[in-house]
Order: sequence, then structure tokens, then C-alpha cells
Amino acid sequence: MKIFVTGGGGFLGLRLAKALLARGALGGRSITQLVLLDSAFPESVPQGAERVAGDVSDPATLEQALAPDTDAVFHLAAVVSGAAEADFDLGMRVNLEGTRALLERLRRCAQPPRLVFASSVAAFGGELPEVLDDSTTPAPQSSYGAQKVIGEYLVSDYSRKGYVDGRSLRLPTIVVRAGKPNAAASSFASGIIREPLNGELSDCPVSPQTGVWLLSPRRAVEAFVHACELPAAAWGTRRVLNLPGITATVAEMLDALKRVAGAEAAARVRWRPDARIQAIVQTWPARFRTPRALELGFHADAGIESVIRDYIADAGL
Amino acid sequence: MKIFVTGGGGFLGLRLAKALLARGALGGRSITQLVLLDSAFPESVPQGAERVAGDVSDPATLEQALAPDTDAVFHLAAVVSGAAEADFDLGMRVNLEGTRALLERLRRCAQPPRLVFASSVAAFGGELPEVLDDSTTPAPQSSYGAQKVIGEYLVSDYSRKGYVDGRSLRLPTIVVRAGKPNAAASSFASGIIREPLNGELSDCPVSPQTGVWLLSPRRAVEAFVHACELPAAAWGTRRVLNLPGITATVAEMLDALKRVAGAEAAARVRWRPDARIQAIVQTWPARFRTPRALELGFHADAGIESVIRDYIADAGL
Repeated sequence: MKIFVTGGGGFLGLRLAKALLARGALGGRSITQLVLLDSAFPESVPQGAERVAGDVSDPATLEQALAPDTDAVFHLAAVVSGAAEADFDLGMRVNLEGTRALLERLRRCAQPPRLVFASSVAAFGGELPEVLDDSTTPAPQSSYGAQKVIGEYLVSDYSRKGYVDGRSLRLPTIVVRAGKPNAAASSFASGIIREPLNGELSDCPVSPQTGVWLLSPRRAVEAFVHACELPAAAWGTRRVLNLPGITATVAEMLDALKRVAGAEAAARVRWRPDARIQAIVQTWPARFRTPRALELGFHADAGIESVIRDYIADAGL
Repeated sequence: MKIFVTGGGGFLGLRLAKALLARGALGGRSITQLVLLDSAFPESVPQGAERVAGDVSDPATLEQALAPDTDAVFHLAAVVSGAAEADFDLGMRVNLEGTRALLERLRRCAQPPRLVFASSVAAFGGELPEVLDDSTTPAPQSSYGAQKVIGEYLVSDYSRKGYVDGRSLRLPTIVVRAGKPNAAASSFASGIIREPLNGELSDCPVSPQTGVWLLSPRRAVEAFVHACELPAAAWGTRRVLNLPGITATVAEMLDALKRVAGAEAAARVRWRPDARIQAIVQTWPARFRTPRALELGFHADAGIESVIRDYIADAGL
């Protein structure tokens, strides 16, 4: 079982790699190779993983890095929402051309590989129902969201043609991300928990009433693995899935932080409204019904408190 | 008012050009230039139109052919459904790369041009409700349909960014097309009327019960013009529209042909089932509710008989 992970040097990519190596197998077959592709890596990557520094939108890089007998691919590489909005060309190149280049490479593999594509709740926007469900039509209001939806349609058509065996997962906002704030418009949702727990101040650019549809990194990694292991028949012709999540407002997140880590921690969040961030985030939906994903065996977190406690455990705080 | 039409040498492109030249104006401004781009042209094009032979997916061709002060663009160029299914790479190049190349060219115009994009009912497929409406999510079951949906999302995002002022129209199957059968899976829907009226035999590859959601060339050209003339505010953030149409089964089309042109004409249709064509066509929806389009002032044909009578009049039969 040879596995290839784009965005393999990123936060989720590295966690996925670690989880795969800990399992040692995927779909009942032992893992013989795990290649991580990314533009940059931290100093150390999980033992047993090979890293390749390069650009996912460069066909020559993919040609060289991706073995023709690759069995499973996790496509996590992306220019995040805020950055794709600020630099349209960069977002189009990495998020759209990168996905196309990867699909073209996979099409020429010996066997059509399984492909798990990390799409996003940013697929949705515009006039939305109070609660979204599996029938809600994507109408992204960011270039990142548009590029993700286009990627979903490409993955579906390449799958229909039998070139890959693809599955697109619309990820909720991942909370709590480790590390530093990034250029994602959703960066605050992790920052207002992570920084206070580290004794640092955190600026919240959106209002306390802002709702966030979220999933923990633990559940996200489980979802990637489960999506890959499900047989093709479970997906049928419907290759895109809204993942389960939970809804929490910023105020509810801070209340939970207070309960878990004390009022002192929660007081480290300062309100610094940012109209640009608020404008992007409020186009994202905050509430979903996800019957299909639950039927297929995907799971949400138990609640925002357990999300925070899991982060504390994982970060060794 | 400078106008650019891709697919300008095709059936609808030429009819649109003729209609624009007959009007002499678009959106209240007189037309000073009308450029038709296509890979091939008939011997004569409407007087007053300039033709450019070239590939819409070639940036250099667009750079040269499309004036930087172009005001309105009609993007009709496409590899049709049957051909895009048979040659995946060709469909991706023309239908996806072509649309991207055009949008990139338009983005560098002096003012964001109005853009009318001819999308298609082939956007829909898979498990569908009996009657589709404006909230139905596209799930194409052909590469042509997937490429059209991707084009819609590109047009919407370029519009949101202010790079163009785009409007995507999902066209029903156009009946009756003049000329020869083509590689579109829907080619039969015109052929079974056109050929008998010309005293020729026509093979019908689908069953009599097959329903077709259709629009006449007259109404389609009116829709292109109307879509372009509507102010941006009428579209808001929703830049994709299901056009009105009428539903007719193949049996109903032949009954109408009999009433209009006699039993002798209808008897010229032979049943020659083609599983490949039937498989593509039956993924297309046959019934729609189109409240938004009707509110915006778009019109369907009165019925299948008037569609046939209009064809007879236009063809000078």
C-alpha cells in the first residue's frame, strides 16, 4: 500500500501521516510507502514518511514524486481562504491547477488510486437556509470556496470516468489547530483558544455571536482515513460529502474555555473587529444536518469542551 | 458597443450575430464592432460581422482577437456533449481551459465586460426530483456537463471579484437546430423533425417515452440578448439561471410533426436504439419549474407545434 499526501507538511497532513504510520495499514493492507508533498516542512516529519518539497501544481514534480503504483492519495494542499482571496492568481494556480495536475497524474497510474480530497464548508455562501443539509447547492462567496467546489466537480467526473476513485469531504472549520495563526479567514477560531491556553493574548476579529461549524483535528484525521477505507459502492455516483460537525458561537467557545481553563485564560481574548474577516466568515454556514455522513459512519465531536480538552491533551499542556 | 462572440461560426452563434446586427444596438448603445471567433465558419457570415478563425483555449488568439475595450461577450464555444465524452482531453481543453482563458482575457479589459455564458441542462444528472427547480444542485453525469458547471462557478467568482459582469444560462436542448446532425448526444431531438421535413430519413436513437426539455433557437437568441441587457442588480450574487423551456417526449414531437407536416413526414423517423446515447440523454432532466427566469423576463416557447412551425418559417421550407 503506497500512500501520497499533498499538503503533507501542513498541520493536518502531518497529523494524518502520524496516524497512518501508527496504524501501519490502510484498508487492511500494510503501508509500504508514505510520501508527503509540500512546499515547506517543519524540521522533523514522522519517522517512516518521505518528504518531497515541491509545488502540487507542477506536473514535473508530481511525475517524479508520485509512484505509478500509488494506491491512495490524500489531497490536502491548498492556499487558504484569506490568501486565495488576497492573491487570486495564486489561489487559482494552487487550488485549481494543482488539483487538475494531480488528477492528470493519477489518471496515468497503473490502477485508479483512491483519492480523498479535502474540500470545505466554504463551498457554501450567499442566501442560505438556517440549517443546511445534503441537498444545499454550493454558492461560494470566496475564491477559495469556488476553487474547492470546482475541485469537487473535477474529482467526481474523473471518478465517473474511472480515472480515480475519488471522495471529496467538505471539512468544517478545524478547531483547535496547533501552531501559529495563518492566513485563513477562520484562523481566529483556533487562535482564541490556543493562544490563551499558552498564556498569550489573542485578537478576535469577529463578533461574539458569530457561529462556527467546527470539527477537531482528531475527528478530521479519522474522517480522512474512513473516507478512504469505505468501498466505492458506499459512495456510488455521489462523491461529495458534508462532514458532521458541531456549531459553536465565539461566545460559546470562550465560555467553554473559561470552564476548562479558567476566567483568566478567557480574558486573554481581545475584541478587534476586522470587517474583511467578518465579511468572509459570515458567508459560511454555521448549522448543518448531515444524515448521509452519519449513515456512512463519520462522527462529530461530542461538544466544544471536549474539543478543547482534546487539544490540551494532544499539545501536552 | 463592441461585441465578441465565441462559437460565433456555429448554429446559435450565427443566429445571434444576425439578430444583433438586425437590432443594431445592445443595451441602448449602437453596435460598432461584432467579432465572431470560431475554429471554422460557413462560407458567408452575416454582413457587418468580423470573423476570426482560432481556438478559444489559446490565450494568444484571444489576446489578438478580443479588443481591450470590448463591452459584451457571448461565450458559446464548446465541444459538444458526445464529443467531450468520447475525447476527455479535448473537452477539458476547450470547455474548461477555453472558459478560463477567456475569463483571464476579459479580466484585463479596460472595463469589466458583460459576459453571457451558454451553460446547459446537462449540468444536472444522477438522482433527480421529478420536477427540477432553481434550488436543484447540479450533479452532471457527463464530462460536458461537469465542464459547464465548472464554467458557471468560474463566471460567478470572476463576477464576484468584479473582473467581469457574468451571467450563465442553462440552456435546454435546442430544437430545431438547422444543418447537419452533430456529435451532441441531443442531436436526434432536432434530427427527427428536421430530416423528415426535408424529405429525408432520420434515425431516432432513444425510446419514444424519452422526455426532452427544449427551447427553440428563436427563444435562445432572445434569452442571450435579454441576459446581457439585464442590469447587474437583477442578477445580484446569483449568476446562474435555469432558462424556461417546454417538455416534450419523442412521441409528442412526432405527433406534432404529423399534425404540422402530415403522417408521411412523421413516418420518415426510424427507431434505431443506441444504448450510449440513451444512457447520456436519460441522465438529463426533462421537467423544470423556472420561477426566477420567468420573473426576470425570460420566455419559453408556446408549445412543440409552434417550435416546428417557427423552424419551417426560418428555414424557408
